[in-house]
Amino acid sequence: MRVEGRWYRTIWLDDDRRSVSIIDQTALPGRFSIVRLTTVSEVAEAIATMRVRGAPLIGVAAAHGLALALRDNPSDKGLSTAHTLLAATRPTAVNLQWALDRLRSQLQSVPIADRAEVAQRLAESLADEDVRACEAIGRSGETLLREKWSEFDQRRAINVLTHCNAGWLATVDWGTALAPIYRAHDAGIPLHVWVDETRPRNQGLLTAWELAQHGVPHTVVVDNAGGHLMRSGKVDLCLVGTDRVALNGDVANKIGTYLKALAATDNGIPFYVAAPSSSVDWALEQGASIPIEERNGAELGLPVGVPVANPAFDVTPARLVTGLVTERGIASPSQDALWRLFPERRPSR
Amino acid sequence: MRVEGRWYRTIWLDDDRRSVSIIDQTALPGRFSIVRLTTVSEVAEAIATMRVRGAPLIGVAAAHGLALALRDNPSDKGLSTAHTLLAATRPTAVNLQWALDRLRSQLQSVPIADRAEVAQRLAESLADEDVRACEAIGRSGETLLREKWSEFDQRRAINVLTHCNAGWLATVDWGTALAPIYRAHDAGIPLHVWVDETRPRNQGLLTAWELAQHGVPHTVVVDNAGGHLMRSGKVDLCLVGTDRVALNGDVANKIGTYLKALAATDNGIPFYVAAPSSSVDWALEQGASIPIEERNGAELGLPVGVPVANPAFDVTPARLVTGLVTERGIASPSQDALWRLFPERRPSR
Repeated sequence: MRVEGRWYRTIWLDDDRRSVSIIDQTALPGRFSIVRLTTVSEVAEAIATMRVRGAPLIGVAAAHGLALALRDNPSDKGLSTAHTLLAATRPTAVNLQWALDRLRSQLQSVPIADRAEVAQRLAESLADEDVRACEAIGRSGETLLREKWSEFDQRRAINVLTHCNAGWLATVDWGTALAPIYRAHDAGIPLHVWVDETRPRNQGLLTAWELAQHGVPHTVVVDNAGGHLMRSGKVDLCLVGTDRVALNGDVANKIGTYLKALAATDNGIPFYVAAPSSSVDWALEQGASIPIEERNGAELGLPVGVPVANPAFDVTPARLVTGLVTERGIASPSQDALWRLFPERRPSR
Repeated sequence: MRVEGRWYRTIWLDDDRRSVSIIDQTALPGRFSIVRLTTVSEVAEAIATMRVRGAPLIGVAAAHGLALALRDNPSDKGLSTAHTLLAATRPTAVNLQWALDRLRSQLQSVPIADRAEVAQRLAESLADEDVRACEAIGRSGETLLREKWSEFDQRRAINVLTHCNAGWLATVDWGTALAPIYRAHDAGIPLHVWVDETRPRNQGLLTAWELAQHGVPHTVVVDNAGGHLMRSGKVDLCLVGTDRVALNGDVANKIGTYLKALAATDNGIPFYVAAPSSSVDWALEQGASIPIEERNGAELGLPVGVPVANPAFDVTPARLVTGLVTERGIASPSQDALWRLFPERRPSR
């Protein structure tokens, strides 16, 4: 992603290989600020406070955090402590657990002296893998937008509605839900994106900032507005990201996603979820078992004394999802379709 | 409604009968501030900027505005100018148009010298009528809450979800959607209210303030959260107000209402709309023709330069509405049911 002419990823290993740098997303869109993290505690803090956020990105950040921890203590105990600390930062996105489990299982057989170095290479390769997955999602999703454009005989811009930020900032580069939009825009398909503000953290402003950097026309609306836009014929397609997809195609994503999926279904508008396979919980049969993070009520920013609750995610049942846009193409939201695209994930009988 | 021990209405004619006082709702919940309005322009400004808001209340406020205008110019021209000025303040709530039309038609045959005085009495009687209607809605709605409580063998509190503010502040007293809640609470039925924040104007904070004044347990959530709460079994009944009901039962209300009605339907939760007959547009066949106000994008409070849109209402189709709670009881959302409760509104053949 280019920011004011320079290419960035959202996280990278610094030249001294003893720290990682991130773009502090709590400062955006007001300020583009790079923060250096040197310890596993700093990484855990950055994930918990959402300096880094987005399911794919927090997976990669956690991997880097584990590698930093092993620089100080590469023992089995050190590995286990760092794993526990990082895994506890956020419960809903499966990518975090997936990345940590993958590194731990790969590192357990590595000699202690080599662990930190190997962990760092694994974290970097996880980042590269995420970039490739997002690029591939971009290609799959672009075809959907192109088809929609053809439906209208290429005579008008396609209106896409998205919720939260599933862009470049939520991943290492490109984004999940926004990757197809960037590709389609670059390919000359005219687009306009309705961006849900996404209270309480206003990740819609991150999406608007990204789209502005890339030159994609967009309009921010309050989270209440999407249903009205859909009923008024102003939305052609919905495209969102996900924090965890269950094997039956149920989708956990930022709170409010379910409401937009209901409205899309009620108005015959396709509702797609961009989901790298790292966001699929291959062990989870259905969405009802996905843990929903309850965040601090202070995030709502309401006057002191007002009683608040702050659930951060909801689960959209598979029946409301038109398709999952994965790095291997588009799958119906079902176990069989997912296994067909990812046969290596099918349990051997 | 009692505020810190003293009984208030939201609007009243001052003792000198040359001004009306209102509670400035743009200052709440932070500050309880009473503002005196002395001219029709000040009333129009108060309606447009939402110092007074809520469909029933702006009807009464407009009536008082018309009366103030006639103090200065009681001619036919004066009547017509004031009508036009006030009617243009907000397009969606039918109460405004209804109150203005009613006063104009009643005043046209009144001698010019008497018009201001008669208009003031009509405005006051409109206010009294609104209070009686809200009290009656409270009685009808209370039975719904009582029935729900019985369904649970009176073993636990009833969870009600509401959107925006359809309380005391939106009317002259009691409220529409909140009137049944106040009555049920006073009758000892245990209740807990989920209050949608209601971006961009945060009328949910007005609702929370009212509920706190009355001692009703409540929790404010972002507008994104209601679907998740319903899927999690945490909502027993939805109850909202309305700005205009079409004859077929379609309901215009604060933007985002439609999304909650979809979620209620998807989860088998009853979705009731408290609607005094002054909010029914007896001449309008269906909701699609209701004008939807587009308000200033600055209301979103986002950084300058972010492109925004700000539709203020949406239309919930009758098929998603369980019932309309009127001052004459509960009607199915249909023309026949409305005419059955209000036979005088049925056009003569």
